[in-house]
Amino acid sequence: MSRPLVLTNATLATMESGYGLGPTALVAEQGVITWLGHDLPERFAPLAQDLGGALVTPGLVDAHSHIVFGGNRAAEFELRLNGASYEEVARAGGGILSTVRATRAASEESLLEQSLARADALIAGGVTTLEIKSGYGLTVADELKMLRVAREIGRARRLRVVTTHLAAHAIPPEYQGRAMAYIEEVAVPSLRLAVDEGLVDAVDAFCEKIAFQPHEVEVLFQEARALGLPVKLHAEQLSDLGGAALAARHGALSADHLEYLSPEGIAAMAKAGTVAQILPGAFYTLRETQLPPIAALRAAGVPMVVASDCNPGSSPMTSLTLAMNMACTLFRMTPLEALQGTTIHAARALGLTSGIRVGAKADLCLWNATHPAELSYKIGQTPLARIFEGHHD
Amino acid sequence: MSRPLVLTNATLATMESGYGLGPTALVAEQGVITWLGHDLPERFAPLAQDLGGALVTPGLVDAHSHIVFGGNRAAEFELRLNGASYEEVARAGGGILSTVRATRAASEESLLEQSLARADALIAGGVTTLEIKSGYGLTVADELKMLRVAREIGRARRLRVVTTHLAAHAIPPEYQGRAMAYIEEVAVPSLRLAVDEGLVDAVDAFCEKIAFQPHEVEVLFQEARALGLPVKLHAEQLSDLGGAALAARHGALSADHLEYLSPEGIAAMAKAGTVAQILPGAFYTLRETQLPPIAALRAAGVPMVVASDCNPGSSPMTSLTLAMNMACTLFRMTPLEALQGTTIHAARALGLTSGIRVGAKADLCLWNATHPAELSYKIGQTPLARIFEGHHD
Ligand SMILES: [Zn+2]
Ligand SMILES: [Zn+2]
Repeated sequence: MSRPLVLTNATLATMESGYGLGPTALVAEQGVITWLGHDLPERFAPLAQDLGGALVTPGLVDAHSHIVFGGNRAAEFELRLNGASYEEVARAGGGILSTVRATRAASEESLLEQSLARADALIAGGVTTLEIKSGYGLTVADELKMLRVAREIGRARRLRVVTTHLAAHAIPPEYQGRAMAYIEEVAVPSLRLAVDEGLVDAVDAFCEKIAFQPHEVEVLFQEARALGLPVKLHAEQLSDLGGAALAARHGALSADHLEYLSPEGIAAMAKAGTVAQILPGAFYTLRETQLPPIAALRAAGVPMVVASDCNPGSSPMTSLTLAMNMACTLFRMTPLEALQGTTIHAARALGLTSGIRVGAKADLCLWNATHPAELSYKIGQTPLARIFEGHHD
Repeated sequence: MSRPLVLTNATLATMESGYGLGPTALVAEQGVITWLGHDLPERFAPLAQDLGGALVTPGLVDAHSHIVFGGNRAAEFELRLNGASYEEVARAGGGILSTVRATRAASEESLLEQSLARADALIAGGVTTLEIKSGYGLTVADELKMLRVAREIGRARRLRVVTTHLAAHAIPPEYQGRAMAYIEEVAVPSLRLAVDEGLVDAVDAFCEKIAFQPHEVEVLFQEARALGLPVKLHAEQLSDLGGAALAARHGALSADHLEYLSPEGIAAMAKAGTVAQILPGAFYTLRETQLPPIAALRAAGVPMVVASDCNPGSSPMTSLTLAMNMACTLFRMTPLEALQGTTIHAARALGLTSGIRVGAKADLCLWNATHPAELSYKIGQTPLARIFEGHHD
């Protein structure tokens, strides 16, 4: 039986309507918040930690990541900047398939070790809940290996891991021109086996001209729903294939990227309650110029998430507060929207809840800051002071 | 008398012509590198640390920073994103003058404490040499206070601090419309007193329509040269006033920002040996669209520096590797140029030297990486493993 956690003189961003900066004191017992207010009950006074006005927020939720992969793509990054053409990069073995090769070649142990370094960087920036996708194995065995590593990360660290099956991420060379065969022979069978092993919390796909078409995604989503799993979709990143509307039709938790999202897609998401995941790291890295329709999403009342999209190609980013800064700087989201997008809205995109309230887990970040806007304002710093964890108590 | 530092099986980026990835072993005695090569002399073998192929670079040099200031501008950042006009921000007390007020109001102790947090973040990212400018005091006493704090940071941390007098940063309200009077009554007298106290290593100014005009900078630079101090200049950030050519005429160490640099400015810098400081953090934060002329600078053989420009308004950035990533991503500099820009070229911009060679100080960073391009490729991570310091031995 652990001692109660008692915080006073805190700037508590409860995230209940806006920042929710009402209460300044908190008590948690057995990892659950049992009291919130201003005037601490006498009996807790001896245990109180005076935070001197420092900011406390819910633990951050990174709701879209691909942190499990082998190798890195620094050599390709350098080749491109040295002026190599896409063809030359491909000849040198670059692109997503180089990550697929390295991921297939890696043992589960090696993959875990490489991925933990990225998880640790995210945790050092305040992430206490992390979504992790498969999608660089692209065989039944290698997709299962990735999902096992994702689950293992949640056991190896004080981190709540939510896994997503993303076998429909890219078409491997052995299935070039046979995307539907890949769905039927790899994506669906690996999903069934992953479910049997308890490895999968949701199903995702990459809906794009260069990846899977809507009718292929449809087959996978029907299988997911038959298995009782929620879906989400990489949609409208490079072009508008109507992916967001497709996702909404399946009651998706989220549609992600969305630079080319249409008004019809927004309306479908708003109606279905599908969350918009905004991923500025990929926009920045790919030097995209088409902005996601933030103002229209805001006007339609679609909740927005900000995530790292940590991946070796288009967003080798392991700082969620940097993603928040980019969402503000590049997309003109507000610091409040950025923090909602890494707390309550991010949790919703994973089918979870967040926020500081009585009855909730005491899953809290203490920051070297006194106002929540500082988390989006500072660039490249990790103003995290410490994490109080309720998940594991 | 300390034990020799003996490193083997390292990826040593000596930065002697390109990355200089030749030697794999190093010996340093009394903080000075005394041996570099492949086959470690027998007598050092018992002390060898096998680095398993890990990357070692010179300690990073951040050659342009304004880390000494009071307060922060998160509230203003949020106001703007919530849609406030510039006039509303000004009425709410925003802008550089809010930092001037907070810096004037802060005691030397408080200013040191606030600034050390930023220095620590930069050090955690591999910075071992840091330039720090004054420029938020704008009175004789407050400029001296800032420079004393900058020197104190160098004593409080294992960090080589190079100070720059930048009283000519902005025109304070009490001198509005009287810039030349400010130069004569504040900038020049504070410079003389700072030199008497041993507080100043170089002199800088902000040459821009909204700040100081070339003929005002000229008066200050003549005083600097009479005092035997090198100069540098914030030039061509928002418009082309011919600042780079002015700086070059005075044999400046560097001209900084340079988005609006002309071909004539480039030619003058090349001829004078003036280094170009490239500051992507401000470009990014201000959502500037005019790119600095990287290809023309490269073609003219002007050495390029990449610096954080850490400041509370236009670049609240405390990660030099993130500045390297932005230089590559936003400006298409190569990872090699980015690393030269934070090692040998950055040192030159401060009148110092860098690089791993026999006879040099053992000022080294060990990274969780195996190739120098990884430092520019990874976003928002601090892949620093540790610093070996020669400066303080
Ligand atoms: Zn993704
Ligand atoms: Zn500056």
